Amino acid sequence: MSVIYPRVALIGLGLIASSMALAIRKAGLAGSISGFAPSRETRQTARELGFCDDVFDTAIEAVNGADLVVLCCPVGVMETVARDIGPALAEGATLSDVGSVKGAVIKAVGPHVPDHVHFVPAHPVAGTEHSGPRAGFAELFDNRWCLLVPPEGTNQAAVQRLRGLWEGLGAHVDVMDAEHHDLVLAVTSHAPHLIAYSMVGVADDLRRVTNSEVINYSAAGFRDFTRIAASDPTMWRDVFLNNKEATLEILGRFTEELFDLQRAIRRGDGDQLFDYFTHTRAVRRGIIEAGQDTEAPNFGRVPTKKGD
Amino acid sequence: MSVIYPRVALIGLGLIASSMALAIRKAGLAGSISGFAPSRETRQTARELGFCDDVFDTAIEAVNGADLVVLCCPVGVMETVARDIGPALAEGATLSDVGSVKGAVIKAVGPHVPDHVHFVPAHPVAGTEHSGPRAGFAELFDNRWCLLVPPEGTNQAAVQRLRGLWEGLGAHVDVMDAEHHDLVLAVTSHAPHLIAYSMVGVADDLRRVTNSEVINYSAAGFRDFTRIAASDPTMWRDVFLNNKEATLEILGRFTEELFDLQRAIRRGDGDQLFDYFTHTRAVRRGIIEAGQDTEAPNFGRVPTKKGD
Repeated sequence: MSVIYPRVALIGLGLIASSMALAIRKAGLAGSISGFAPSRETRQTARELGFCDDVFDTAIEAVNGADLVVLCCPVGVMETVARDIGPALAEGATLSDVGSVKGAVIKAVGPHVPDHVHFVPAHPVAGTEHSGPRAGFAELFDNRWCLLVPPEGTNQAAVQRLRGLWEGLGAHVDVMDAEHHDLVLAVTSHAPHLIAYSMVGVADDLRRVTNSEVINYSAAGFRDFTRIAASDPTMWRDVFLNNKEATLEILGRFTEELFDLQRAIRRGDGDQLFDYFTHTRAVRRGIIEAGQDTEAPNFGRVPTKKGD
Repeated sequence: MSVIYPRVALIGLGLIASSMALAIRKAGLAGSISGFAPSRETRQTARELGFCDDVFDTAIEAVNGADLVVLCCPVGVMETVARDIGPALAEGATLSDVGSVKGAVIKAVGPHVPDHVHFVPAHPVAGTEHSGPRAGFAELFDNRWCLLVPPEGTNQAAVQRLRGLWEGLGAHVDVMDAEHHDLVLAVTSHAPHLIAYSMVGVADDLRRVTNSEVINYSAAGFRDFTRIAASDPTMWRDVFLNNKEATLEILGRFTEELFDLQRAIRRGDGDQLFDYFTHTRAVRRGIIEAGQDTEAPNFGRVPTKKGD
């Protein structure tokens, strides 16, 4: 593949930025990659790992001369970062981000984008429960979706150029508006995360059941929840604070649904339960057919052996 | 290893029975294995796969002369099966089961166990979202836990003998009473399953979000829920109907916890959210350290490639 942006700057050097840098380099999509993270330790780790050509001590230095600047920091600090780097962005550059919410990011970052810069917010729907610069890998975006959420009136050539980058990183690309994005993600991500956090919290808090029991017998379903509930606390705090309405709406619907099933259990209505459980099986089938998960039992977990 | 039971009979030939048969044979723990399933198709599949020495057309023939009979059928039919086979059980034989609830099984099966038979209920805490005789594999119980729940006064030698079998199958064994078992499993399995079913149901039902959106963007967390919600509907209907009180109690606690986090989101209390999410991360760590899950990102899912 050929270079799409001569110089890319990544602000924030965690799981997503390090994966982007590795994938950009592997595919030869940028001439050079510069990076910045506010933590000295993260910068040091990034320098050791070498996934950027240059790691700078300030964001302003990192964005200097960049054709594409991507905010890879938690959503809660994007406004501050944008205010800081806005005046330093080059004429004709594209500013993007990878935040999991889009309405709030557009509201926070938009006002700090100079007229001569294209603002194309994005959200790669990919990740793991691990975080930080060491967690990145070039294949993270393979066959995943990246959603572009350009505000009305955004330059279409800039949108197409960014689409080219994400497709080059292995992703499928879709374009939608911020409100719809935030609702869809509340369903597929934000509500499930809060639910998993809650259930893990209950298990940990129950005095009549010991922690070792919770841990030893987790293979029966619970351990899947703990993976989700091990995700980065800062990122998730910011997601919930910034996609409040849609998340609360979906959680309200979830609770209604849960209460309905609880009532079926209380009444002993086996037919309702059976029909419901048969129906949900079909959703799993769709996800496997769309290549968004493996069909292997237990996600194809590598079996853990006794004494390992 | 040496033979623990000269003849083992498996009643029901799904995921657990076929995995037991494969593992028993691999470890040489039985002289012969007989099997029965009520469905002609399942019996036919089991005969083709050959994991039993004999597959019979009636349960009574299958248990004839067996030293160990294991009920591997859904919890809801165990009473009928026990009534049917009770009179045919051999002097000194052990009757066990693999049901996910224990109080209800003891109540349903116990009265049909003749005095000359040892009744040792059991629950291997292992499984996948797949079901049926083709889903079995010999490693299913490796490093998983099997809980023995003998009613008061059960012959200790019979309990030790069954423990030997499960350890031979690769499992760790623990002994507890039925009430505690049902509470612990409500936490680690039954409540999480109902929650996952509910969330998948909501996603599937939401008219403003299309099914293809739910499927394509599921990698952000939701797909883990769909795996759980793809589990066998008959088994899970029976679990909920037979562990009603403990499941509803834990779901009540879960809802309280969820409402508390929802309130924190509504109020914008980032500190509460951050502290909570930091705390739940530790539970995951415990599960990985106990060898009950893999540390690999996304459970070490085999990456799916574009166009696969």
